[in-house]
Amino acid sequence: MLRSCAARLNSLRGLRGLRGGFAGSSFPLKNIIHENHSLPKPCWSKDMRLLFDQMMKKCEDGSWICFPSHTYGSTKMSQDFSAFIHDYFPTASKAINKEKLSQARLFCGSFEDGLGFEYAMFYNDAEERIVCLFEGGPYLQGVPGFLHGGAIATMVDQTVGMSAILAGGVVMTANLNINFKRPVPLCSVVVINSQLEKIEGRKIFTSCNIKSVDEKTLFTEATGLFIKLEPEKNI
Amino acid sequence: MLRSCAARLNSLRGLRGLRGGFAGSSFPLKNIIHENHSLPKPCWSKDMRLLFDQMMKKCEDGSWICFPSHTYGSTKMSQDFSAFIHDYFPTASKAINKEKLSQARLFCGSFEDGLGFEYAMFYNDAEERIVCLFEGGPYLQGVPGFLHGGAIATMVDQTVGMSAILAGGVVMTANLNINFKRPVPLCSVVVINSQLEKIEGRKIFTSCNIKSVDEKTLFTEATGLFIKLEPEKNI
Repeated sequence: MLRSCAARLNSLRGLRGLRGGFAGSSFPLKNIIHENHSLPKPCWSKDMRLLFDQMMKKCEDGSWICFPSHTYGSTKMSQDFSAFIHDYFPTASKAINKEKLSQARLFCGSFEDGLGFEYAMFYNDAEERIVCLFEGGPYLQGVPGFLHGGAIATMVDQTVGMSAILAGGVVMTANLNINFKRPVPLCSVVVINSQLEKIEGRKIFTSCNIKSVDEKTLFTEATGLFIKLEPEKNI
Repeated sequence: MLRSCAARLNSLRGLRGLRGGFAGSSFPLKNIIHENHSLPKPCWSKDMRLLFDQMMKKCEDGSWICFPSHTYGSTKMSQDFSAFIHDYFPTASKAINKEKLSQARLFCGSFEDGLGFEYAMFYNDAEERIVCLFEGGPYLQGVPGFLHGGAIATMVDQTVGMSAILAGGVVMTANLNINFKRPVPLCSVVVINSQLEKIEGRKIFTSCNIKSVDEKTLFTEATGLFIKLEPEKNI
């Protein structure tokens, strides 16, 4: 729902032509980048590696950029996070159990390698488009043999959320409308295509679809509405 | 997306007045019920235990029933699952990596106690209503201090999906439309209220909201559309 993906934003500051940015000086991002999860891993399938290599080739002329994806580390950060939360969510922050924050992990990065969300994102600035390669591991099961709808919704939120972040900085998901067309087999590789649609004031409209690697099967279509947040004015 | 929650259905067969059922004789559910995750756990917060006790009191006159929730175990089940998948998803089943099925876990039950999805569901048959007590652990973080939108979507799917299962047996999520009104603080307890709205042919319409324990804060509103599946006729 809430999308700052702070660690990613830090690495995106250098991208050309971005229309937004993360202005949270109280949130020292450089301290929390522990690991880049977008690099190929031994647990990735052959399909995932092939697609990753194809996308990396597209990056060679600069039209596409590979995003690093990160987890939030778990130590010595509660102070930084507390300041960020206080700035952006002054009311809601009162309800947060700050002691438990020290254990916190980004949802998509909280599984062991190969068991949960394995993904890599690529961004095309000219087309305002993101391609996310996603391999959903065996711990994401819904009905036997297929991904849980919540796991798909998570990757939808993660991907269209990144489109919104690039457009608006710190944003919050206001709506996700997801049409599940076909079940996604567990441990298969799919491609999520996310598009920035339009911006109206603080509202950022996005859309995405999820297709098979050969693009012949449409698994999911979705739209996402995000609201740009401003420090000390929200929630 | 796909909702059979097979292990649950097995335990629900004894409920009074249910309008559907899981007829998968090829899916011997009794073999895969390993643990009831809805019983109070040491990791639950005081708020969660208090609410659980209050709901259990409502169960005393039989108007409410506490659901057991289960994980799929990981051994010696691939044969059973394969038969189920073949019956319900004859085409899609070809794409499933059956070797990896042996590692599979239900998404909502794949975290260690206290780190992920802690929840308990209660059902009122006369009102066609489910109440789900949910405490989202520190591994479900989106923006620092708050639950990831995907984690909320997962519990929405899980809860309205159960309403649909009770109405239609084996069902598949066709649409989730989720309005995120307020961020949900990490490690807080919230209440998900799910309602069966109507049934039109194979379409089952549901809705839900997520509120604070004192019911003063509305965090999320959502609708879910599910399609009843029939063996060897779907996908």
